[in-house]
Formats: sequence, C-alpha cells, structure tokens
Amino acid sequence: MVAVAILAAGRGTRMKSDLPKVLHSLGGRSLVERVLDSCRLLQPERQIVIIGYQGEQLKQALSSRQNVEFVEQTEQLGTGHAIQQLLPHLHGFGGDLLVLNGDAPLLRPETLQHLVEVHQAGQHAATLLTAHLPNPSGYGRVFCDGNNLVNQIVEDRDCSTAQRQNRRVNAGIYCFNWQKLAEALPKLSTDNDQQEYYLTEVVDYLAPVTAVDVEDYLEIVGINDRKQLATAYDILQARIKDNWMKAGVTMINPDSITIDETVHLEPDVILEPQTHLRGNTSIATGSRIGPGSMIENSQIGENVTVVYSVVNNAEVSANTQIGPYAHLRGDVKVGESCRIGNFVELKKATLGNKTNVAHLAYLGDATLGEKVNVGAGTITANYDGVNKHPTVIGDRTKTGANSVMVAPITLGQNVTVAAGSVVTKDVPDDYLVIARARQKEIPDWQLPTNSNPQK
Amino acid sequence: MVAVAILAAGRGTRMKSDLPKVLHSLGGRSLVERVLDSCRLLQPERQIVIIGYQGEQLKQALSSRQNVEFVEQTEQLGTGHAIQQLLPHLHGFGGDLLVLNGDAPLLRPETLQHLVEVHQAGQHAATLLTAHLPNPSGYGRVFCDGNNLVNQIVEDRDCSTAQRQNRRVNAGIYCFNWQKLAEALPKLSTDNDQQEYYLTEVVDYLAPVTAVDVEDYLEIVGINDRKQLATAYDILQARIKDNWMKAGVTMINPDSITIDETVHLEPDVILEPQTHLRGNTSIATGSRIGPGSMIENSQIGENVTVVYSVVNNAEVSANTQIGPYAHLRGDVKVGESCRIGNFVELKKATLGNKTNVAHLAYLGDATLGEKVNVGAGTITANYDGVNKHPTVIGDRTKTGANSVMVAPITLGQNVTVAAGSVVTKDVPDDYLVIARARQKEIPDWQLPTNSNPQK
Amino acid sequence: MVAVAILAAGRGTRMKSDLPKVLHSLGGRSLVERVLDSCRLLQPERQIVIIGYQGEQLKQALSSRQNVEFVEQTEQLGTGHAIQQLLPHLHGFGGDLLVLNGDAPLLRPETLQHLVEVHQAGQHAATLLTAHLPNPSGYGRVFCDGNNLVNQIVEDRDCSTAQRQNRRVNAGIYCFNWQKLAEALPKLSTDNDQQEYYLTEVVDYLAPVTAVDVEDYLEIVGINDRKQLATAYDILQARIKDNWMKAGVTMINPDSITIDETVHLEPDVILEPQTHLRGNTSIATGSRIGPGSMIENSQIGENVTVVYSVVNNAEVSANTQIGPYAHLRGDVKVGESCRIGNFVELKKATLGNKTNVAHLAYLGDATLGEKVNVGAGTITANYDGVNKHPTVIGDRTKTGANSVMVAPITLGQNVTVAAGSVVTKDVPDDYLVIARARQKEIPDWQLPTNSNPQK
Repeated sequence: MVAVAILAAGRGTRMKSDLPKVLHSLGGRSLVERVLDSCRLLQPERQIVIIGYQGEQLKQALSSRQNVEFVEQTEQLGTGHAIQQLLPHLHGFGGDLLVLNGDAPLLRPETLQHLVEVHQAGQHAATLLTAHLPNPSGYGRVFCDGNNLVNQIVEDRDCSTAQRQNRRVNAGIYCFNWQKLAEALPKLSTDNDQQEYYLTEVVDYLAPVTAVDVEDYLEIVGINDRKQLATAYDILQARIKDNWMKAGVTMINPDSITIDETVHLEPDVILEPQTHLRGNTSIATGSRIGPGSMIENSQIGENVTVVYSVVNNAEVSANTQIGPYAHLRGDVKVGESCRIGNFVELKKATLGNKTNVAHLAYLGDATLGEKVNVGAGTITANYDGVNKHPTVIGDRTKTGANSVMVAPITLGQNVTVAAGSVVTKDVPDDYLVIARARQKEIPDWQLPTNSNPQK
Repeated sequence: MVAVAILAAGRGTRMKSDLPKVLHSLGGRSLVERVLDSCRLLQPERQIVIIGYQGEQLKQALSSRQNVEFVEQTEQLGTGHAIQQLLPHLHGFGGDLLVLNGDAPLLRPETLQHLVEVHQAGQHAATLLTAHLPNPSGYGRVFCDGNNLVNQIVEDRDCSTAQRQNRRVNAGIYCFNWQKLAEALPKLSTDNDQQEYYLTEVVDYLAPVTAVDVEDYLEIVGINDRKQLATAYDILQARIKDNWMKAGVTMINPDSITIDETVHLEPDVILEPQTHLRGNTSIATGSRIGPGSMIENSQIGENVTVVYSVVNNAEVSANTQIGPYAHLRGDVKVGESCRIGNFVELKKATLGNKTNVAHLAYLGDATLGEKVNVGAGTITANYDGVNKHPTVIGDRTKTGANSVMVAPITLGQNVTVAAGSVVTKDVPDDYLVIARARQKEIPDWQLPTNSNPQK
Repeated sequence: MVAVAILAAGRGTRMKSDLPKVLHSLGGRSLVERVLDSCRLLQPERQIVIIGYQGEQLKQALSSRQNVEFVEQTEQLGTGHAIQQLLPHLHGFGGDLLVLNGDAPLLRPETLQHLVEVHQAGQHAATLLTAHLPNPSGYGRVFCDGNNLVNQIVEDRDCSTAQRQNRRVNAGIYCFNWQKLAEALPKLSTDNDQQEYYLTEVVDYLAPVTAVDVEDYLEIVGINDRKQLATAYDILQARIKDNWMKAGVTMINPDSITIDETVHLEPDVILEPQTHLRGNTSIATGSRIGPGSMIENSQIGENVTVVYSVVNNAEVSANTQIGPYAHLRGDVKVGESCRIGNFVELKKATLGNKTNVAHLAYLGDATLGEKVNVGAGTITANYDGVNKHPTVIGDRTKTGANSVMVAPITLGQNVTVAAGSVVTKDVPDDYLVIARARQKEIPDWQLPTNSNPQK
C-alpha cells in the first residue's frame, strides 16, 4: 500500500514565469502531471500534491485528475516541513510513502516500481533513490556500508576532499515506512545554513535505510529554469526516438525531429528532417513523413507521403500523397490513393478514394466521392456570413479552375463544372454546368500611363 | 587485378524491417550500392555480392548495375563460410580478393585503394584494415610486431586486461592473395562459441599478414540498427558539409542542413538553416538557399534566392527570387531576374526573363515570354479531365487577378487579361480580353438569420 | 583615452571567397562591424581599421560608420608591421591603444572594458588578453610571475614539453601605452621562420607587461574558414539563447532556433522548433512562435500564435493567430484577435480588430476595418500593370469566394460581395454587390476523348 507525496509548493523563481513551475509543459504534459503519471505502476492508494505558491492555479490545472489530494504548505520552510504537513492527513496510514519532486519529471515508472519493491522486500524504514553522476558537484553524497545500508548523506558544501570523490548522489526521491517516518518527522531541526527543515535529516532518526541506484542517471534531472526545461525535453526526446529507431523506424537527422510519447509508429516508417508528430497520432508502415511536416492527432495509413505539410485531426488512407504545403484540419477523412497538393486546405472534409485536389483549393464542410478531380482554385463557399453549409460532390465529377460551389449544394456524379463558374444550384449527374460571361476582345488596349508612381 | 567480395547474406534482424538490411537507403543510395561504389578507384575485375536472406530482392535491386555477380550462401555459418562459397567461382583467379561488408558503407575509395596498394607493394598474403578506436570494446584487437606484421588477432571476449588496452581493432576489411586464401579457406574450423566459420581464423594459416590503419576511424562504422543508420548518415553529412565549407560555402546552423553527395555548390553560396539539397543539384555563386527549402535535381544560377520553397527538376537562371512557399516541379525553366512568389506552383513551365508570378497561381504546361506579369489567382486550366494542353503567353502580357486561361490557348504580346476573366480563345497582340458580368448592387442586403448555427 | 586599431588587412584565403574575410556576415553584421561594436563601452577616441587586401571594398562597407579611419598596410609583413603603419597617424597621441583582430568577433564589450581598466589602473606598458584553453595547441603560451607580470610568450612550436602543458594562451588582443609602444615598434625584427614583424616581440621591449584572463575562452575564437564561421555563429547563438532562456523564454529544441541579437523577447514567450527571429523584432508575453516560422523586423503582441509562416515588417496585435503558411510583408498592421490563415499574403495592409482572412487571399495596398470577413480566394487587384492602387473595406463587410476588388476601390460597411464577383466600382454601406453570369446546365456532357494522351 503506497501513498505518493509530490513536493510542488515552491515558487520556481528562476523560471521567470507567471505560471507555477510545475505547470510548465514538457512535451504536451505539465511537469507535475508527468510526476503523477510516473507513479502509475504503483497504483498508489493516495496521491497528495503539496501546494503553496499559486496553489489554486495548481488545483485547477489538476482538477480533471481523479484521486488527487492537495495539502497546503503555507510557509516555505524546507522539504522536511513540507512532509510534516502530511501528518494530519496520513494519520493512521499503515503503508509506505513515496516522496517525489514536482520538478523532476523524467523518472521512469519502472524505476519507482523498483524502488518501492526493494523498500518493501527489505522492510526498510526508508529507501533512497541514488544516482552515479559524471559530475556530482552540488549534490548530497550518499555513503553506504557493504550491505548497501546508508551510513551518511553529506551535503556537497560539507564534503571533505575525499568525500567529494564519491559520485553517488541523493536524488531526493524517498520511499518511507510512513509510521516510522511519522515518528521521526517532529525531530527535524532548522540547525543549518538555510534555517530550513530538511527531509534528509530524517535519515538520521531511521534504521535501516538503504539506497537503490537508478540505471540511467538522466532520470533524476530536476528543472529550475528554462534551460533545464529544454534539456529535459531533449532527454525525453532522445528516449522516445531511440525507442522508435529500435522498433524499426528510420529517422534522417533525428536531432531535428520531435515526437510526443502518445504517438505510435509502425516499422519501416521513414521520418525526414524537421518533422513533428504530436498528440494521438499513428503512422502505418511504409509511410514517409517530412521534411518540415507537423502531424497532430491524426491516423496515417500505409505508404502515405506527407511533405512540408500540416495535418491536424485527420484520417488519411493508404497510398495517398500530401503536400508540399497542404493543410488538413479538423475532422478530415482522405481515402486511398488520393493526391492533396500544394496550397490546399481541407477542413471538415471527406474524400473518396483516388480523388485529387492538386492545387490552390479550399474544401470545407464537404463530402466528395471517388475519383473526383478538384481543379486549381476551386473553393467551397461554405460560410454565408452567419452559418456554415455542406457541399456534396459525386464520383468522377470535375470542377474547373477558379470555380466556386456556393453551399448548401449537391453536385451529382460525372458532373463537369466549367472554369470560373460560380455554382449556386444543385447539378444532376452527367451535366456540364457553366456560369460565365462571354469573352470579348478589345484591340489596341493602352495600359494606364504612369501618372501616379506609387511603388 | 582485384576481385571484390561483399558480405550481404545476413538477415539484419535488428533493423526490424521488411527490407534486407543492405538495401536500406543512406543519403539516396543503398548500403550495398555505397559499398560497391567505394571500390570504384580499384576498377575491380569482378564484383561478387554474397547473398542469402532475401537474396532475390538484392539481385533485383542491383539489376541495373553492370558486372555484379551474385553468389549464394544458403546457410549462415559465418564470414569464413561466406568466403568459402567463392571457391568454385574464383577458381583459377590469379589476383587479389578484397573482402568488404555490405553494412559498412562509409569507407572512402581512397582508403581501399591505399589498402590494396600496400598489400600489392608488399606482396603480402593478407592485409587487414585496422582502426584506432577511442572506445574499442567489442572489437577484435590486432597485435603487430615492429614491422607491422600481424602477430595475433584477439577477440574482445578473449582479451587479457593488458590486451584490452590495445585500441587498434580489426575493421573486418581484408585484402587477400586469392591463391593463398583459397588454400587456407578449407582449414577453417567451427571451434568457437558461435560454432561458425570465422574469416579471421584464416590469418593463422597465412604469412606474411600486415595491417593498414584507416586515417578516420569513423569509416569503419557498421550498421546493424536504425540508430546506427542515423549515425552513419550524420557522419556522411559532416563529411560532405565540411568539404563544402572548406570549398567556400557558408552554412548557417549546418547541423540542420542535409546535402546529397551528388550536389555541386560554388563558393559564396549561402545555405540557411533547414535546407535540403538532393540529387543532381547545382547552385551557382552568390545564391542564398533557405531557410526551410528543399531543392532536388535542379540547376540554380547565380545570385538566386530560394526561401521556404520546394524546387524539383527545375532550371533557375541568375538573379531570380523564389518563395516563400513556391513549388517548382517537373521540367521547369525560369529565366533571369524573375520573381516567383508565395503560393505559386510551376509545373512543366518555361518563363522568360523578368517575368513575375508573384502570388497564388498555377502555371502548368505553359510557356511564358519575357516581362510577363501573372496576376494573383491566375490559373492555366491545362487539364480537360482527360488530356493536358499547352498555354502560351507572349512578352509583356499581363493576366488579371483570378483569371483562367483554358488551354490549349495562345495569348499574344502586350495582351491585358481583365481580372476574373476565363479566356477560352486565342488573343492577338495588344488586345484587352475581358469575360465578366456587369456589376450589380442591391441595397439593404440582409444576411441570413442564424437559424442553423452549425459551426 | 583609448584608440582602437583593428587588423583587417589579410587576404583570408581559406574563406575561398570574393568577399574580404572581415566582411563576411555573422548573424546579420560583418565580422569587422562586430569588432568595432565590441569597443562601444570604451567610447574610443579613434577607431582605425588597418586595411590591405580589397581595402576599398572595406572602406565602402564601413562608409556609413562615423569616426572610422583607415590606414593602409600595402605589404603584408606581419602584425607588428601592421601596427607600425600607425606611427604617423597616432603621432603625439597620449592615450592607450587597443589592438584587435578583425576576424575575432566574439569578444564581449565587458571583456575589453575590463582589459582596458586593468591596464590603466596598473599603469602598465602593455596588457595582454589571455585565455585558458582546454586544447591550447597552436597558440603562443603566456608565462607570468607571481604578480601576474608577463615573463615570456613562447610560440607553440618553440615550447618545451613542460611549457606545452601551460594552457594559458595569448589571445592576440593587447592594450598598449601608445607612447611606449611607439618607441618599441621600430625595434621589431624579422628574425623568425615567417620573416615577418610580430607584434608579440614588442613585449620584450616593454615593462611592466601584465595579462588579463578572459572569463569565457570562446570569446577569443578567430575565424579563418567557413567552418569556423559556422562555429562562431553557434557560439553566438548559444549565448543569445541562453540569455533568453534565463529571462523566461521557453524554447523547444533550441539547437534548431536562431535569434539575432537585435531581437527582444518577453517572459513566457514560447519558441517552437525551427524558428528564426531576425532584425528589430519584439515578441510579447504569452506568444507562441513556430514551428518553422521566420519573423523579421516585426512587432508581435501578447498571446499571438505564428505557425509555419513568414512575417516581415509587420505589427501584429494581441491574440491574433497566424498560419500555417501565411506571409506578411512590408508595412502590415494586423489588429487584435484576427485570424490570418493558410495561403494568405498581406502586403502593405492594415486590418482592424477581429478581421479574418482565413484562406487563399492576397491583400495588397489595402485597409480593412473591424470584423471584416475575407472569403477564400479574395484578391485585391492593386496593380494595373503600371501603378499600384488602394483598396478600402469597411467594418463587417464580407467578401465572397474568388472575388476580386479592382483598385482603386472603396467598399462600405456591412457590404456583402457575392462569390466570384469582380468589383470595379465603389459600393455603399449595407449593399450586396454581385457580378456574375447566370448558371446554365447542359445535360449528357461528354468529356473529350483521349485523343492526345499528353501526361
């Protein structure tokens, strides 16, 4: 039985932000949400966020999360003080308490699970997460005996030269036997430089205390400023991209690519440079995405190409080619073997198989059949200034260059719309529809003289 | 006289791919093609690819290559076993055999030439390629005497602690006296952990064996998974970009730029970030390409600018400005001092000097003279639903906004096309052509009421 | 009283350029301009650029700079020879001379100020700038006594093995008491490998000579080729980006972002990947720029989003959304809460609040009121082939799809322009304006047969 406490009361001054530090976004989720999510394998009985600075904003941001409790730390008197606030709330709780930092969002669920398992298997009073850092300066060093029981934690500034060589550091992540911790917490003093209550001190009053090493030391990275936020994002991205490369995804210039954790990719997908995949996006085998494309909340079928385009909330079926410079947004469905070309916007549009919209077109609130050919400059006038109206176009119909379909309107199958026509009434199958003026030629036309040379 | 054997029979399981590993593309050419090309300075008498897994696919992929032979290794019993398969095929061959790995595509032709030259000059039985690695772990170490004759090759797992300090490793690239090798090959045993025939063992049966160091140890990188494929691409790109920078090309943020080896750049070209140059592309001095542009199989003249655009199969003459958001594709010729602006697509189009297509236009199957001004929204309706037809526009002609030229059509010189006109018949020189309805105004117009609030 | 001399006479052969080395651009300013600007805190009495190779081109490039003098070094006989050329020009000058290299553009003004302050406070004959390099090979080593007085400068090639361990190097930046230097300069000899006059030698004839360490050794980087130019740009960018991150700007994938020093950002701005900010650009709090956007010489208000767009010389007010694929250029003003969507170009255009131009439109020389809705495909025909003319559109007016406003033209408030209309005459308030042909339908329309299968 595990309760989780997340330290999230600090100001985060170095972020220089109106937003509380732990609410800053890291790859689509806030830091504190990531910390909460990192506990998911533990199925914690209780999840307590210790709030202080801008606590209301935190409460609101997490309001959709179930089973999250908030405990207020009105004064900021150190990590020990923060955990002391839990005493009334966890009164009588018989399990273990996992203490996490709201600004350390890179811990893997497996790491925390392992920490708790070791803690519970050994019936320890406390178990620390430790890491071996290449450069440990600034961190408290952890000294253990031969049985991996913690002898001492020495703050960096208090280390002797010999102690400073120890690269095993305290990650600030603890699992406690709550009952034992509850007895020790009142003993904390403020007898230190900062005159704060440090949670580390509690280790002096508990036994046995052991330590568990994190495999990948990058997991313990904390975020105090925007540079560390950027670094954390890079770490996260390296993790995600390495995993997909292992799974059979080719990436060209992976450093320039970003992929949210919510994305799913099949083997033999190829990602070209400067590609960004976000939200609930999936891409099927054989597809090539990029360069310079962003796909968000979309399902992309097999052997699709997307070049220099933005795709948002769309389903694209197999063998379709998109781009360059196409924009699909909002409830778009494109069939198989379609071609969506340059300067084309699709919005709330459904396209049957083998339908082409090759250039300079806007289709909104539109349903197109199969093998439709949408001419360059075709526009569905779906908005009358007040309401939006639907356009329906049948199979094999062809719209001419610079034609307009004034919605609500239905064109049948095999219709031909002449270039430049504004179509306002429904057209039956197999018709030509034309709405344009006769061509007139005027000889010896003189351009205006350059009387007003505005440039 | 040199024969080349390329080991390409492996499964490449870690690629997690439907494609055989050596057929994966690295900067536009497959791994095995790159290995074949790395031998070009040797003018090899014979080029033998040893195939196994998906051998037919390999044969097909290389079918357009001349003088490439395929030898099948039906079972995968090690590198020695692979080379044993050559015995019937090279029976009586009196030259040297260069053994290469199909998944090690970064060897420079000069490196292989040097290897063979040293081998032949010294009349060695075998010559190994060696590299000094910063981190040699996992590689077989090569131990030589004072005359650079190989005493011993010790696999990593068999190394003593002292031997492990040796950073000179076996690259797995060999030049053999074929006659001597042919005598030694039958002696190979499977007396090892993997129970495979190792080619390395042959060194025990040959003398003298020498070693040649590769200058740049990155050349020996092998590719087993997608991450190594990405790394190899980065190495290749660093090579290419360093060479062009040495040759006088300015790059801003070179890490974000990619350049195929087939590209040619002149001094004082400036490449902005996120620029990609591919295929048979050349760019003349003074041109500035990017940011965010891709140029493929195109010739770009002097002092051209290309900003946020895609150019494919085009010739662009001096002093022309392209972009942002222009797309040239497929047999396009643009004259000098033209301006191709935003949201313009040119396809099979030829433009004379000083012709402007500044915005929102599609010109397909079109030939334009000099000093033509193509108005915003101009479209050549080149497709009647079945066939494509040409449009010809004479010098100094101006097309109006949202006008359409319905091909086949010819407009003379100095023609003015009125805005919104659909032009269906040829127009002689100096004419104004107009095809539009008279403007009517209706007062006190009421918008529809919001009866149907679809959003 | 300080005079500054900048060594800028060299050929810069390794740049392989038609442009003199010191005129190459680094983030919007040439190397020599950057060196001049690095002296700004000193308010130098005189600024002397020593020119030689392509001196006239340098003079011209710096012609708009005030108080810059040029001294010609006709032969390239070394740095000592270059400074000897100053003797007639600084005859009688009673202050200090700061010697800088025209190809070392990364020195911070504070570093030079500190150098001069230390020099003047100690009344030294000369003060050297020194740096501690991780890899000092190639640089002259500086040896000082316990009082930081320079004993010796030893060129890399003349160093003993012990001396080579010294990582303190001569940056080639000096502050001299001019009177003492003037006496020493004639003593220089060419008694060295290159047979040149080295300025370093002067240290032998002066006392006391001291050294000042630069804090960040990257400041002394010199540029000899394009790769070093790219590296210098990366250093500069890291500096700029680190500063903005410290100041509260979030960057996603900062390596792919570039920001000119002239840009100003407020806290809580978010920069997405592949974003480029140039010139006199400012971005207010809460705005999110990118991915794939370039903003140049523009003022962006609060909570604006710019996605995959190019913005040049524009003012954009709060809460407006731009992109993807929008292009604003040249004297554009966009009000609050506007939406500028895909494939929209604004040129010399002013838009009132809550005006939408959502797709496929060109507005040039146009003034729009508030809450205007510009339909897809709307174009202002502002160019009659000779002159440009203005378009004025009143509040709440709606233009139909593929409509054209032939300028000069004024549309009143609450006007509705029907789809496909070419509007050539002014329209009063509350009118519907329509200019189009009646729709005709022709049944059983046959597409042309495929007689001419051009593809």
